[in-house]
Amino acid sequence: MMIPPSSSWRRKVRHRQRVTVTGLGEPISIRQGLLVQSFFFFLVASLACVKSLRHHAKRSPYRCVQGEKMAAATAAFSQASSPFRVLLLRSSPRSSILGFRFPIVSAFFLKQFRAGKSVGSCNLTVRGSGSPIKARPSSELRKSSIPRVDDKLRALREVFASPDVGIDAYIVPSQDAHQSEFIAECFMRRTFISGFSGSAGTAVVTRERAALWTDGRYFLQAEKELSQDWVLMRSGTIGVPTTSEWLNDVLTPGSRVGIDPFLFSSDAAEELKNALAKKNHQLVYLYDFNLVDKVWKESRPRPPTEPIRVHDIKYAGIDVSAKISSLRSQLNEAGCTAIIISMLDEIAWLLNVRGNDIPHSPVTYAYLIVEMDGAQLFVDENKITEEVSVHLESSGVKIRPYESVVSEIESLAARGGKLWLDTSSVNAAICSRFRSACDRYWESLQKKKKAQLPQSSDDPLDGPFAVCRRSPVTFAKAVKNDAELKGMRESHLRDAAALTEFWAWLEEEVQNRTITEVEVADKLLYFRSKQSGFLGTSFDTISGYGPNGAIIHYRPDPETCSAVDSKNLFLLDSGAQYIDGTTDITRTVHFGDPTPRQRDCFTRVLQGHIAIDQAVFPENTPGFVLDALARVPLWRIGLDYRHGTGHGVGAALNVHEGPQSISFRFGNMTPLLKGMVVSNEPGYYEDHAFGIRIENLLYVIEAETPNCFGGITYLGFEKLTYVPFQSKLIDLFLLSEAEVKWINGYHAQVWEKVSPLVVGPALNWLWNNTRPLPTSSP
Amino acid sequence: MMIPPSSSWRRKVRHRQRVTVTGLGEPISIRQGLLVQSFFFFLVASLACVKSLRHHAKRSPYRCVQGEKMAAATAAFSQASSPFRVLLLRSSPRSSILGFRFPIVSAFFLKQFRAGKSVGSCNLTVRGSGSPIKARPSSELRKSSIPRVDDKLRALREVFASPDVGIDAYIVPSQDAHQSEFIAECFMRRTFISGFSGSAGTAVVTRERAALWTDGRYFLQAEKELSQDWVLMRSGTIGVPTTSEWLNDVLTPGSRVGIDPFLFSSDAAEELKNALAKKNHQLVYLYDFNLVDKVWKESRPRPPTEPIRVHDIKYAGIDVSAKISSLRSQLNEAGCTAIIISMLDEIAWLLNVRGNDIPHSPVTYAYLIVEMDGAQLFVDENKITEEVSVHLESSGVKIRPYESVVSEIESLAARGGKLWLDTSSVNAAICSRFRSACDRYWESLQKKKKAQLPQSSDDPLDGPFAVCRRSPVTFAKAVKNDAELKGMRESHLRDAAALTEFWAWLEEEVQNRTITEVEVADKLLYFRSKQSGFLGTSFDTISGYGPNGAIIHYRPDPETCSAVDSKNLFLLDSGAQYIDGTTDITRTVHFGDPTPRQRDCFTRVLQGHIAIDQAVFPENTPGFVLDALARVPLWRIGLDYRHGTGHGVGAALNVHEGPQSISFRFGNMTPLLKGMVVSNEPGYYEDHAFGIRIENLLYVIEAETPNCFGGITYLGFEKLTYVPFQSKLIDLFLLSEAEVKWINGYHAQVWEKVSPLVVGPALNWLWNNTRPLPTSSP
Repeated sequence: MMIPPSSSWRRKVRHRQRVTVTGLGEPISIRQGLLVQSFFFFLVASLACVKSLRHHAKRSPYRCVQGEKMAAATAAFSQASSPFRVLLLRSSPRSSILGFRFPIVSAFFLKQFRAGKSVGSCNLTVRGSGSPIKARPSSELRKSSIPRVDDKLRALREVFASPDVGIDAYIVPSQDAHQSEFIAECFMRRTFISGFSGSAGTAVVTRERAALWTDGRYFLQAEKELSQDWVLMRSGTIGVPTTSEWLNDVLTPGSRVGIDPFLFSSDAAEELKNALAKKNHQLVYLYDFNLVDKVWKESRPRPPTEPIRVHDIKYAGIDVSAKISSLRSQLNEAGCTAIIISMLDEIAWLLNVRGNDIPHSPVTYAYLIVEMDGAQLFVDENKITEEVSVHLESSGVKIRPYESVVSEIESLAARGGKLWLDTSSVNAAICSRFRSACDRYWESLQKKKKAQLPQSSDDPLDGPFAVCRRSPVTFAKAVKNDAELKGMRESHLRDAAALTEFWAWLEEEVQNRTITEVEVADKLLYFRSKQSGFLGTSFDTISGYGPNGAIIHYRPDPETCSAVDSKNLFLLDSGAQYIDGTTDITRTVHFGDPTPRQRDCFTRVLQGHIAIDQAVFPENTPGFVLDALARVPLWRIGLDYRHGTGHGVGAALNVHEGPQSISFRFGNMTPLLKGMVVSNEPGYYEDHAFGIRIENLLYVIEAETPNCFGGITYLGFEKLTYVPFQSKLIDLFLLSEAEVKWINGYHAQVWEKVSPLVVGPALNWLWNNTRPLPTSSP
Repeated sequence: MMIPPSSSWRRKVRHRQRVTVTGLGEPISIRQGLLVQSFFFFLVASLACVKSLRHHAKRSPYRCVQGEKMAAATAAFSQASSPFRVLLLRSSPRSSILGFRFPIVSAFFLKQFRAGKSVGSCNLTVRGSGSPIKARPSSELRKSSIPRVDDKLRALREVFASPDVGIDAYIVPSQDAHQSEFIAECFMRRTFISGFSGSAGTAVVTRERAALWTDGRYFLQAEKELSQDWVLMRSGTIGVPTTSEWLNDVLTPGSRVGIDPFLFSSDAAEELKNALAKKNHQLVYLYDFNLVDKVWKESRPRPPTEPIRVHDIKYAGIDVSAKISSLRSQLNEAGCTAIIISMLDEIAWLLNVRGNDIPHSPVTYAYLIVEMDGAQLFVDENKITEEVSVHLESSGVKIRPYESVVSEIESLAARGGKLWLDTSSVNAAICSRFRSACDRYWESLQKKKKAQLPQSSDDPLDGPFAVCRRSPVTFAKAVKNDAELKGMRESHLRDAAALTEFWAWLEEEVQNRTITEVEVADKLLYFRSKQSGFLGTSFDTISGYGPNGAIIHYRPDPETCSAVDSKNLFLLDSGAQYIDGTTDITRTVHFGDPTPRQRDCFTRVLQGHIAIDQAVFPENTPGFVLDALARVPLWRIGLDYRHGTGHGVGAALNVHEGPQSISFRFGNMTPLLKGMVVSNEPGYYEDHAFGIRIENLLYVIEAETPNCFGGITYLGFEKLTYVPFQSKLIDLFLLSEAEVKWINGYHAQVWEKVSPLVVGPALNWLWNNTRPLPTSSP
């Protein structure tokens, strides 16, 4: 499963001015003075076009054309009477829309788009450095000319004015209080308020406007789900402002922007505060209640109360006392006496417990404070079974009410605690309360000193402070121990058995009847659920047939989803939680005759997959160094994919975990360490046509190299996933002999490892799908 | 030719503690608790060893053991009576040498090194976070017990005390006033004062100490050339301090550190100043004279006075007026009215002139100031021929004396000039004088305002200031125009013809008589000099036989150099300056029977070379993204090389130029742009055995990809270099069919392009060396 492609490095290193125009969801980039051919359109010169544009947008210098104003300008432009179909915008905010390099702008005219007019539901989307606006057909625009603000937005804005609030804008992020990727339903405030149900996104509501930011995975979904009251902000697209840039643009200077400080990491809140300060806006922490909850009211789901269970030592490998003891050594070395951990998977890992509060992630809502002489777990007591109670007690972990974490962090400061604080994960509410409590301590000390009371101490370190560092549990959890790797290997084999049964079933079933993407996902769940130790899915199954496969995080809807048949590619990205491990696998197949184009693309994605799998690299190599290896075969024919190549995976924990990654984003300098698990999932997506992704999980091993240049260790990968690739999609002419041998070796391993676990038609299917491809040498 | 491997990214991302020990120049890294096998040695456990170490170094807590003290401790340790041969040092400066993780340290004992004792001249070198010290055999140590400070150092230190100087330390960098890589002999002050003749290095002399920093290319050379009064600092090695760290350690706080401000870029001087400020040291700019020159006196060579020549427009492609006019537009856009250019190749490129002041680089010592209405070239008038005078005059460039640049830059500030200033290249003397002049302007304006004189202006921009940015000429020069590329292509073919004649001659000659590395280099020069348009070498020829090939920047000495025969590999890295282009090529050959090991390594280096050559990548990709492609085949068997894979090359200009590179160092985000020239030169070096490097020059082209994913351009490379690889070094079993085809395709092109240029035995040799390797398919 993919990780979101936030800001692209290509954007960071970009140094030429660009103009970007999108039609039918298909991006077209126009380099100044250069005509670029897109998949759908050709741009052809016409001075008249620009002249007419000037007429329509005469008094719209670029910086003003944002939000509603831009929508209006765009609407005028897209009226049926206008013969022109492309609005050219400059991405620089400095010059007026038509003043910009007029002779160059004048050279473009969207000719082919006229054909697009016949496509009933087509939308013309225009991006600039301002807000991207959907320009709907004029018929739709007429309908929407009667303003009708949605009730939730109106209710939310009413709360803005209440005396204990008093804000001009409110930011609603996706997160819960623990920076979780998947969250319990009761915390899905952004979904509730905006209607957009993708996993990543930020909603911002001002008194007049409402905008939603999401990334490339969700552009199409957001377009469908957002009402007309919302503006979609395509994050990562050139010229799209950040939330703070947008707020700085639309709010009167000196406005008050409210957030729920529990829902922002301290770092994120700090960054936001500084960005908003540029226009003198104030970031207001609203501790007492979440404004969306005020609108949601009774219909808001109850917080989860699922019981916690002990994660067996045979899967965990290291007992809680040893883990906590090692953590305390690290605290001690750093001069700290306490740490607060808020990441739910870190708590679950450290305490060898698992929960069931969140879909896909076996974690429980809690905070953990570890001090040198004890530890407190802040959690709903109702979730604690007798077994868990004994388990925690034996490791010196006490249970406290979830909500009391704030008062405890204040009391920790009052006791002079020296806190290891990961401000990138701990929320702004807790960090800010600790800081205030520290300030109070030092102020009171100052007063005592002035009064020359004997209690005062002269040691400047004899008092509370925070040491801001990444949580030490992040690395400890990412580097798997032997028991964790054993559990991962074994659960992956059971998962492979389930997938074998599933693919055997599906290949047969597709020939006999119409079957939908949702049915496919459900049946896969059924096969997995028969495996021992199965707990649930590790994320929403991405079951994408044909064009849906090109939507990177597609989630089929039972009402509208496609049928899976033998005419196009079918992409299936899924994963499971087992008692002993977490899986994540993608296979792309064709039940009929793939086109040469599809085989070409599939084979290149497979070549990238093989290159990563086979990579050997010096220790301390950050993942991004390997990323290009996966892209080279695609780049060769001018193709690429807009997501990273690999993410970390937890052992019977979250399917996405840090700190490592294999990505084209250069920022992550975390080296790949022996024992880390990463996904290997290059892909290729042809919009409106098909999607291809091939994903195995790997773990980092010491490579047995005959040399050791530099006296260092060289690392490589071992596979966890053992499910065949579809041979008919492989174009042998593209492959080197070494690549063919790799495939044959892998399929031989698949047969050896998985055949003992399946019977009947599944065994036949496995046999047929693991036969060696022909090679020229033995 | 390679670029220096300064600080390694591996070091930056390193996160575990290491202990490093070196013997016989062969590095061994020991991970804590982990026994690492090196090429020469095995470390075996012995508690007794450490016990004895403790005896010898009892009162030497690590932080104190630096410089002389460490030398003394090491000397005691290495006395013949000591049965132990390895001193284990901790790289962390915090704990004492033997207090550190005693149970782990105690587990190591260097057994095999005893054998090394029989090697007469062997030195034991020990590195820690302090200064690396050569521990000589005790016999040598006795000789050196009578201190004899070298005369140059004594004379230099005498100048420290003179009243107009008054410093406690002086830093002597390699550079001239223009940040040139190669410099005229009269500016080789660092070589003069230290005796070390490598191209890169910094000498620092305090009242008591003298230390020289250089990088991995020159460790062996510096060991040979430095006298006992100098300490060698191996830059880029873990634990070796920077010059400022070292100065901060050895000087009494509040000392005065002198530099010649003409020899430091403004950025470098600023960085140095800040680093030294930590210990309250003051960085003193000594404008009036260079202290080394005071010691050098009459024996210092005269500054060069070689005439300048016009670089023909048919090679330059764009005339001076057009280049200056484009530069002025950029100045105007940036709100500037003037620019000072100090990089000699930028001046030569911009003015379409070439010089002959510096070995290998066709440039002349000069500064250039371009204003909106004129330009001034600061240069020794004697170098200006009648032709050059007319050429410059017609482009509005006036000639001024070289030394008057400082007064002119002050006068520019006084005139209210708004200066584009590249502080990374313009020296600290000029920048600082401009700043002072600006300050004087604004102060005087302030005074006028106070006196309410009518001349005062209210526009805060109506006065001088500097806009600090990278010189716009850097990119303009790096992206070659069609004429420049034509010149590069043609000069490379003539160069290939010379190399063909040379290799044909050498292959024959080696069989008949003993021939030395220097003779080989001289003969190559002879063959090149017969080609039309030949001007000289573009760098010192690296002619390295056997073990010398492993010294990355080896320069054979006529007195001591090896013979080239048929028993080992021979690495030849050379380049030439032609009237129309600059070449740089490396080939590695064997005149007898290469070992399987040599063929294995050569073939992997070649695979890396092919991977870079064939790479296709999206526009805006920085070079470092491609670097791993060149290393993958080596990494697979645990090998690597400690230099970048590619550097920029000028067109009939410097053989090393920025801003692009292909390197494992992530810092350089410059994208590879169409028209840039880069070298493609992976290698492998087995210390004391052999060296392999394969280098072609490439230029960036638009790749003709069948797709254009993302609507962007995909780029690739076209070769400039056409000289065969030696087939007998290629292990066909390692190569894919595509790689064999690449080699055959290249050799076919070599034959086609170069055969018309050679006759007789050279033509035969070319025929024999361009025959296709066998492939399994046509």
